[in-house]
Amino acid sequence: MLYFESDYTEGAHPAVLAHLVKTNMEHLSGYGNDRYTESAKEKIRHAIGCPDADVFFLVGGTQTNKTVIASLLRPFEGAITAESGHIAQHEAGAIENSGHKVLPLPAKDGRLDADTLSMYLQRFFTDENHEHMVIPGMVYISHPTEYGTLYSKDGLAALHAVCKAWNLPLYIDGARLGYGIASPSSDMTLSDIAANCDAFYIGGTKVGALCGEAVVFPQKNTSPKGFFTTIKQNGALLAKGRLTGVQFDALFTEDENGEPLYLSISRHAIVCAEKLRAVFREKGYRFHAETPTNQIFVILENGQMERLAKQVTFSYWEPYDDTHTVVRFATSWATDPADIDELRDIL
Amino acid sequence: MLYFESDYTEGAHPAVLAHLVKTNMEHLSGYGNDRYTESAKEKIRHAIGCPDADVFFLVGGTQTNKTVIASLLRPFEGAITAESGHIAQHEAGAIENSGHKVLPLPAKDGRLDADTLSMYLQRFFTDENHEHMVIPGMVYISHPTEYGTLYSKDGLAALHAVCKAWNLPLYIDGARLGYGIASPSSDMTLSDIAANCDAFYIGGTKVGALCGEAVVFPQKNTSPKGFFTTIKQNGALLAKGRLTGVQFDALFTEDENGEPLYLSISRHAIVCAEKLRAVFREKGYRFHAETPTNQIFVILENGQMERLAKQVTFSYWEPYDDTHTVVRFATSWATDPADIDELRDIL
Amino acid sequence: MLYFESDYTEGAHPAVLAHLVKTNMEHLSGYGNDRYTESAKEKIRHAIGCPDADVFFLVGGTQTNKTVIASLLRPFEGAITAESGHIAQHEAGAIENSGHKVLPLPAKDGRLDADTLSMYLQRFFTDENHEHMVIPGMVYISHPTEYGTLYSKDGLAALHAVCKAWNLPLYIDGARLGYGIASPSSDMTLSDIAANCDAFYIGGTKVGALCGEAVVFPQKNTSPKGFFTTIKQNGALLAKGRLTGVQFDALFTEDENGEPLYLSISRHAIVCAEKLRAVFREKGYRFHAETPTNQIFVILENGQMERLAKQVTFSYWEPYDDTHTVVRFATSWATDPADIDELRDIL
Amino acid sequence: MLYFESDYTEGAHPAVLAHLVKTNMEHLSGYGNDRYTESAKEKIRHAIGCPDADVFFLVGGTQTNKTVIASLLRPFEGAITAESGHIAQHEAGAIENSGHKVLPLPAKDGRLDADTLSMYLQRFFTDENHEHMVIPGMVYISHPTEYGTLYSKDGLAALHAVCKAWNLPLYIDGARLGYGIASPSSDMTLSDIAANCDAFYIGGTKVGALCGEAVVFPQKNTSPKGFFTTIKQNGALLAKGRLTGVQFDALFTEDENGEPLYLSISRHAIVCAEKLRAVFREKGYRFHAETPTNQIFVILENGQMERLAKQVTFSYWEPYDDTHTVVRFATSWATDPADIDELRDIL
Repeated sequence: MLYFESDYTEGAHPAVLAHLVKTNMEHLSGYGNDRYTESAKEKIRHAIGCPDADVFFLVGGTQTNKTVIASLLRPFEGAITAESGHIAQHEAGAIENSGHKVLPLPAKDGRLDADTLSMYLQRFFTDENHEHMVIPGMVYISHPTEYGTLYSKDGLAALHAVCKAWNLPLYIDGARLGYGIASPSSDMTLSDIAANCDAFYIGGTKVGALCGEAVVFPQKNTSPKGFFTTIKQNGALLAKGRLTGVQFDALFTEDENGEPLYLSISRHAIVCAEKLRAVFREKGYRFHAETPTNQIFVILENGQMERLAKQVTFSYWEPYDDTHTVVRFATSWATDPADIDELRDIL
Repeated sequence: MLYFESDYTEGAHPAVLAHLVKTNMEHLSGYGNDRYTESAKEKIRHAIGCPDADVFFLVGGTQTNKTVIASLLRPFEGAITAESGHIAQHEAGAIENSGHKVLPLPAKDGRLDADTLSMYLQRFFTDENHEHMVIPGMVYISHPTEYGTLYSKDGLAALHAVCKAWNLPLYIDGARLGYGIASPSSDMTLSDIAANCDAFYIGGTKVGALCGEAVVFPQKNTSPKGFFTTIKQNGALLAKGRLTGVQFDALFTEDENGEPLYLSISRHAIVCAEKLRAVFREKGYRFHAETPTNQIFVILENGQMERLAKQVTFSYWEPYDDTHTVVRFATSWATDPADIDELRDIL
Repeated sequence: MLYFESDYTEGAHPAVLAHLVKTNMEHLSGYGNDRYTESAKEKIRHAIGCPDADVFFLVGGTQTNKTVIASLLRPFEGAITAESGHIAQHEAGAIENSGHKVLPLPAKDGRLDADTLSMYLQRFFTDENHEHMVIPGMVYISHPTEYGTLYSKDGLAALHAVCKAWNLPLYIDGARLGYGIASPSSDMTLSDIAANCDAFYIGGTKVGALCGEAVVFPQKNTSPKGFFTTIKQNGALLAKGRLTGVQFDALFTEDENGEPLYLSISRHAIVCAEKLRAVFREKGYRFHAETPTNQIFVILENGQMERLAKQVTFSYWEPYDDTHTVVRFATSWATDPADIDELRDIL
Repeated sequence: MLYFESDYTEGAHPAVLAHLVKTNMEHLSGYGNDRYTESAKEKIRHAIGCPDADVFFLVGGTQTNKTVIASLLRPFEGAITAESGHIAQHEAGAIENSGHKVLPLPAKDGRLDADTLSMYLQRFFTDENHEHMVIPGMVYISHPTEYGTLYSKDGLAALHAVCKAWNLPLYIDGARLGYGIASPSSDMTLSDIAANCDAFYIGGTKVGALCGEAVVFPQKNTSPKGFFTTIKQNGALLAKGRLTGVQFDALFTEDENGEPLYLSISRHAIVCAEKLRAVFREKGYRFHAETPTNQIFVILENGQMERLAKQVTFSYWEPYDDTHTVVRFATSWATDPADIDELRDIL
């Protein structure tokens, strides 16, 4: 079997696992008060170029989005998102469960546009009845987006400018952030991300960790009041905080070129994705969208889809038409390039 | 340094970690749809003698309590607990955050008494104005309790009988369940626990795992409707469900005597605790409470407490009087018996 | 000034007010335990042909929707609505504040279609990943809709059949129910409404009362468990329950023809609306939608809109194009037919 | 029958009702945008000596407490109250339903003591683990208290000083505020109340109105951000805002001596209560507590209680001992002094 089902079908990257093994019997205090957690935070601050950033480790993505949004909003406020945003579509109502409405805006290729946002806010706040409505209290985007697309540096800066003009924090869901930064199509570094938002998270679960997401408030003293308590209240505080601390400590250890493991393993996924994309192109397949990251959306004829599924794992995405289906092939830090060669022979 | 601070200062039990390492590169589906999760569930069903039990894996204790309670209650209902119960004192408001009032009842040594409960419910439901109040909708207890004490089988059965009489589910917080079952003072097996409640969880974090709690609805078809979705909504669903599945698969692997690792490593902690208790007794120390599990509450003179803290880790508990303090020494599966000998020499 | 701004710009219908005045100094128990509340419930049961219905009085519409929805849903469930539904657009996030996602479906003229609903539910529940999403737990519609349109008896029955097939309660927001029933375009009586849903409310605020909405669970023993307590928890229980009891007692007092005041005053509004519609038609105005109830949506040229606003009150609705605007004229039980004649002269 | 059951068994004070009747057919905009609401706010600002106060009208007490507390707290914060406080005992879980834990402190005669509060806060915030707990975010008191007792001006000022020292808003539940101010035992005016807290509400429901509570943020620009939207979200915004506006406009209309109706009718209740207290004293009855307001707690022998109940209404409070019961007699603006004379003859 060849494996392209998702980017979370294997355990941890070997170096991450090795660090867990090596530190396993050390006596460490709980709840993140341990040296590895501290080291991981410091390495992240360095990697994003923000020495004063506040960094917190949570366990999973839904939980992270719920906790951050609950901390940034007041009860009468909602979170703006692209209509395709993960919080609008795929969180099992976690955001609403914390009392907040999700406010979806039209988007193209998964990206929220600065002009769309600006016009919406302008119209909203000039409506004399707006106090009868849920007040937009923050903006949520994903990078890469749910469609695997990327914001440009200019696009993100423009979005952030609109947010600042309306005094709304901009929060970036970086579940697959590594795959975004490592893409040759990206013109942004981790520092660029940090400089152009008010909060973001660096996804670990899908980029080499067993679990764990690092929430970052890059600017000095801007983490929401009581954020630690809110993490605990949301069930996101590990008693053995070392589990996330040690993993991120490994992920942000730099190699001889000063590159953190997080980025080098992300690049592996991107190189594999480009190779895979070339195979599909060579074989005449159509893409549902042009994506520069580790997710490839391909249109398959239904009969072929079923035949292929016997030899290859991939994800069903959505129907394309009566006889075709969109499916997703994902690469990751764990993808074996040999699998791609083998896939070429099958297609 | 000698380590008695808590039962979650080390990583995973070596056999648990080894299982994680061995399975690390296997391709497994996410969200608990993997063979190790399935195997772990089956082993737990066997260990508790309930072939039809529903088993779910969550990440941490606060999260588990919040999720289970939110699933068992309707909005107008609250959860009865001993006033010392973890949900009344130590969850950072997680239960209230899900909309429910915690209803504390007086308790002795951390145990909720069947008579106390019965009288409260009798008085509550016969009060003609009771519909103006939060309606009790379930009963929460911890075993071992927050004071390290245990329910007897008769005590638990009596409590369960009251719950059944009033149609209230009884839920047991088993964060340290292994240490309770392994205690020679316990007259209950895992099967007895399962037979005398409607829901319970088997704590992994404090008994050998890096993280993870196994929620069990022991009776057939009694798991709350939509529980899987509620887990996700509460941010408690791991994308890499293998992380908990593999760990519990190891913890419930039986040795040649048919005993699961979970219980044999718990017994180690109990043996160490008894040895430690004997040391304190021999040296003339007073205990704050007689506890038969892995937590020992000792009264120290303040000056001595400060001197001791330079060589030994333990947890500050509460002031005893102006010159003495209650501190907690905890053993675990990871306790080195040699540390106890060394401690004797220091005391 | 001529008044067509809304149907809640005057106080109570004179007969309602007279009943409040007449009973004002009677000593009555609080929280709805008074004879007028009991009488009002009995009259409503009679008017809807459901002798076993449970009836509750709440204060306002948003509160009523929030309380009923919170009672019908489990935490992991959401409420399906037409995308134009009041709970999707105009409740200031009240539904989400109680933890539930609103699930909007495409709709035409404000009506949710049985086929649309059926296809959505079919697709949702056959998606193998549906447990990762908010589960539809009920269906919400408004009658009349937010566009002033009406369901036909067949249309409602079809919708109810779909709901029953999927075991979802159907709840009808009847903020303006009287104006719907009294419309000559309606083929439904109050009894038809009651027979084709699981819960509905009879709006008082917009149909002759100072405040108050009557929530009805028409079938025997189907009111949600703990509904009284949930009303109180949602701040919807009046200490002086007489305020709503006396008003609905007046509103459901029958005249010599056996018609409740609630319907006869609604008919007045409808007669006025038809007269007003005829005026607009006669003067060549275009309607934004054909509505058979008490709300008329007219397209005005912007300059004329501003001139008219000096002599007539109406509600701004939405822009039509660059030079025209949709505005709403509403009639009510309080509309003075002479105002319509005067308006004709102005137009 | 003689009526002393509660202070909400009659409708509105005649002058309040007359104002409703007189203004009934005026065309007024909804949601509080009407001249009577504006006038009522202005009169309240005048009565409390705070020209910059923000005033909002809500419908009932539970709703008001829930809305104000939800506006003052962040999700990780709780509300401190006397253990006898209404929010701790009698709100059907409304506060918890909005996500917040109620933090009860020991209290005497219903009053929270500045020293008790100060010591609690000192201990809480110096506990190094306090971030694992619900953080106190505000202080709630009632004046008069649930026991009918009063704070002295010094007592309130001391409490407010502690609150300011810890940066916690102090909120006063004034469900029966009029009866507190009108008591000869009170050394506080409405202005004193306003000067010694951050928010309070002036209860209408129990002091002459059919419904309605006036929330006041006395200091300039201190009302919580988005409070209007939060009111709507909590179902507390009346479409016919006139209902509360007109009533409070009447209640705060001054007589020839410059005294608002609200206070003069409160004084009537207090005079009646003193007369009633004298009757009980004369007849040798024991009081459960010495209360200077409109609620009298008397200890009755159980047999006598049952006999009395045939001729007099009063409220059952709590058992006193095996043969006696505490019952409450309440006076109000509506109490007929002749009833008290008649009661003397019966006792």
